Amino acid sequence: MSSISEITNKAAIAFEQYSMTTPLQRAAFLETIANNIEALGDTLLEQANKETNLPLARLTGERGRTCFQLRMFATMLKQGDYVEASIDTAIPTKTPPKPDIRQMMHPLGPVVVFGASNFPFAYSTAGGDTASALAVGCSVIVKAHPGHLATSTLVAAAIQQAAETNQMPAHVFHHVTTTDFETGKSLVQADAITAVGFTGSRTGGRALLDYASSRINPIPVFSEMGSVNPVVLLEDALTKDAAGIAKNYAGSITLGMGQFCTNPGILMGVKSEALTSFSTTLATEMSSIAPAAMLHDGIQASYFKNSTHALAQKGITCLTTNTPTSNNGFPVLTSVDATTFLNNPSLSEEVFGPYSILIECSSIEQLKQVWKSVHGQISTTIMGTDQDFANHPELLNLALSIAGRVLINGVPTGVEVCDSMVHGGPYPATTDSRFTAVGVNAVKRWLRPISFQNWPNHLLPLALQNNNTLSIWRKVNGQLTKESV
Amino acid sequence: MSSISEITNKAAIAFEQYSMTTPLQRAAFLETIANNIEALGDTLLEQANKETNLPLARLTGERGRTCFQLRMFATMLKQGDYVEASIDTAIPTKTPPKPDIRQMMHPLGPVVVFGASNFPFAYSTAGGDTASALAVGCSVIVKAHPGHLATSTLVAAAIQQAAETNQMPAHVFHHVTTTDFETGKSLVQADAITAVGFTGSRTGGRALLDYASSRINPIPVFSEMGSVNPVVLLEDALTKDAAGIAKNYAGSITLGMGQFCTNPGILMGVKSEALTSFSTTLATEMSSIAPAAMLHDGIQASYFKNSTHALAQKGITCLTTNTPTSNNGFPVLTSVDATTFLNNPSLSEEVFGPYSILIECSSIEQLKQVWKSVHGQISTTIMGTDQDFANHPELLNLALSIAGRVLINGVPTGVEVCDSMVHGGPYPATTDSRFTAVGVNAVKRWLRPISFQNWPNHLLPLALQNNNTLSIWRKVNGQLTKESV
Repeated sequence: MSSISEITNKAAIAFEQYSMTTPLQRAAFLETIANNIEALGDTLLEQANKETNLPLARLTGERGRTCFQLRMFATMLKQGDYVEASIDTAIPTKTPPKPDIRQMMHPLGPVVVFGASNFPFAYSTAGGDTASALAVGCSVIVKAHPGHLATSTLVAAAIQQAAETNQMPAHVFHHVTTTDFETGKSLVQADAITAVGFTGSRTGGRALLDYASSRINPIPVFSEMGSVNPVVLLEDALTKDAAGIAKNYAGSITLGMGQFCTNPGILMGVKSEALTSFSTTLATEMSSIAPAAMLHDGIQASYFKNSTHALAQKGITCLTTNTPTSNNGFPVLTSVDATTFLNNPSLSEEVFGPYSILIECSSIEQLKQVWKSVHGQISTTIMGTDQDFANHPELLNLALSIAGRVLINGVPTGVEVCDSMVHGGPYPATTDSRFTAVGVNAVKRWLRPISFQNWPNHLLPLALQNNNTLSIWRKVNGQLTKESV
Repeated sequence: MSSISEITNKAAIAFEQYSMTTPLQRAAFLETIANNIEALGDTLLEQANKETNLPLARLTGERGRTCFQLRMFATMLKQGDYVEASIDTAIPTKTPPKPDIRQMMHPLGPVVVFGASNFPFAYSTAGGDTASALAVGCSVIVKAHPGHLATSTLVAAAIQQAAETNQMPAHVFHHVTTTDFETGKSLVQADAITAVGFTGSRTGGRALLDYASSRINPIPVFSEMGSVNPVVLLEDALTKDAAGIAKNYAGSITLGMGQFCTNPGILMGVKSEALTSFSTTLATEMSSIAPAAMLHDGIQASYFKNSTHALAQKGITCLTTNTPTSNNGFPVLTSVDATTFLNNPSLSEEVFGPYSILIECSSIEQLKQVWKSVHGQISTTIMGTDQDFANHPELLNLALSIAGRVLINGVPTGVEVCDSMVHGGPYPATTDSRFTAVGVNAVKRWLRPISFQNWPNHLLPLALQNNNTLSIWRKVNGQLTKESV
């Protein structure tokens, strides 16, 4: 086993060469990784199933998403626009003369990625963080999640093999399987590391940020730390279809035993017959869902502890008929009045699992107060009709201040991998709301702009040369164009 | 005088309304600020001259740049592309169905800006940080630099008046003139503040980052903390024109008495006759420059202290004939051999003022070692001919790892305000190399992306509605277009 400084120094040496590979070379690398993961076939799925208790159907879907992400970044590289090329040509007659200045994005350097427990593929070893960092030319060190080490090791081998097949520099990827806490800390503190990606608990994500911020040379950390994804239920929507909305939400809350950072953990509405009807149906639906094993013993124990703690709070009513046990994930729905909720901050904490709390407000003003109190979310959702939005137009603006993704009449679970997806949000949803962990824009976390002033044309990177041989979109003297200069 | 929490809470209330103003409304606001600053005429210039010792010609130029920046952001707002609109339309037939997801940039919230000492206009009260934050819809609190409080107060009144003329929300801008250290700290720690912009010393910029990182909810800080802007002098270039390069650099090092964060403070070359000829001419030129008063007593005292400290180091030779005094800024050029330089880290510290150190290397390998040792710069420059680059092609890649702006055959002073300018760089040049303080992209520091999932068309912001009435560039299903959906 190499020491942390050996590993990180090798990643820095690899970066020197890897950052100079062409986008097309890296696209081929990512595509080979996807092919290699698929070639692992059932061996990989069965290993992941054994380590995470996630059903094979779910794992098959997640593997598909993981390979889709790798190929999406490959497509981005072939298209080439991600470098955000910009050219301002010289104006020698200006006083003082305006020099020729061009700009493009450049990779930061070696990145450390921490695998997540709840997504053994899509947010782990070859997940979005790794794929986006490798895509733009950063070498990557993955600290495997201890919950699925063997799965992670299989995926790491697929990456390693792809690196060799594509003649990538040695040590462009390194897999760390040491499970102790100190290893992660040392990686984040290592001099050669330039950025960190993490998906997991608030405690873990914040600790990494603190290590990174207290370095002699602080580095950026993108920690995605979960969310309660508040849902606002408006009166006209509930009056029109309380049962339909309730059934939809029963599915969303219990999907994958609630083990998603987009799980709707807080529901709120103004007291009404329709709200009661909604909660009755939701409770019935959730009570009918069969309990199932959770990802691993630690998550199971936390769910038991946190849901039991929530149920023991003053003023809490349990609406579901299930009782949490320490062996299985049981769906739990509770309710509480808004005043009690606002006076007990522990009730707004995430209970990771198939748990949700319904907050009954006395007025729309109180509802807004409750909503604002849980600021800093991955997503927030409003269920409302045109009539509802005409009655309360201010809710839309308020929603924007709360989350990275705002849904109208939908469920937050299910994160579409596309250009317009933001999987991020104000703290504590993430440590930097200016970035997303999902979608093509996830690469922006690992890039910095560089200006090239007065470079002879033939020395410039291809993307910035006069002749636009890459056929990419470039800003030339302020105008987007694919024309050559 | 209001308390910090009153000021910041008012900025948060102002943000709620200001973030909903249209880009055109904010463009008019910025243009009025520029007009109002110009309308202050000589009163403003004379006040700044009195407080900073900067000559009127320089101040006139800086005022021009400041107003140019305000109008540049107004143009950006009228063009409207800065929101980076992206639309992925629904595919209901997909399994699972793909929802309609759209994305655009949204302002972070109230921003605190710290004025710089060396640019009373362009990096101060209505400077780039304030202009870029106001442009995108953030309310702004400026902590005036104590070195030019009266100047800052005049500019603040111009902003205030423009806010009233354009019926902007009360408290969209607030000017804090308290000069104590605690005020700045409290502003950065205030709950309502969402981001910080700073230009100044490394100690100051780092302190603000540390305050921001240790908040319950950490916020981003963009501190621009100066640089030594290393210059690499290659042999063939020197052989061809040592005197010309030396004269050019004498001007750059002493421009504005060296009080720029882009001042070339470190020069390096491989020992040769041409390098000696260069250093002789440079020393003669610099010795002939008349000493002049520096910005304020504190800077004067620091320059005297730091240049004296540098001169007292073992192995240092002073090449200029001036001797530093405590009353005036005297241009100073020193030289040292590379081994001594590498063994004495204090020699790579910035001496803010008309000071530069020439490092004589025994080989190009040693030069690379010296260059790497001063990693984290606003700019770096290579003076070289085609022959030089053919001999040492690896230097270009190395340059990219060092700075935010890389020049070939130029001087780093003079920061062109344009799309392609990066005024940033790896730590300690700034606290986040992923952003720039100058140019249109400076707005990115104050924006975060938001996804709008499944919104009815009429409730969406104009930029994301099907009909592209704003005629902005949008990514629609992955393709850049100005067409409607």
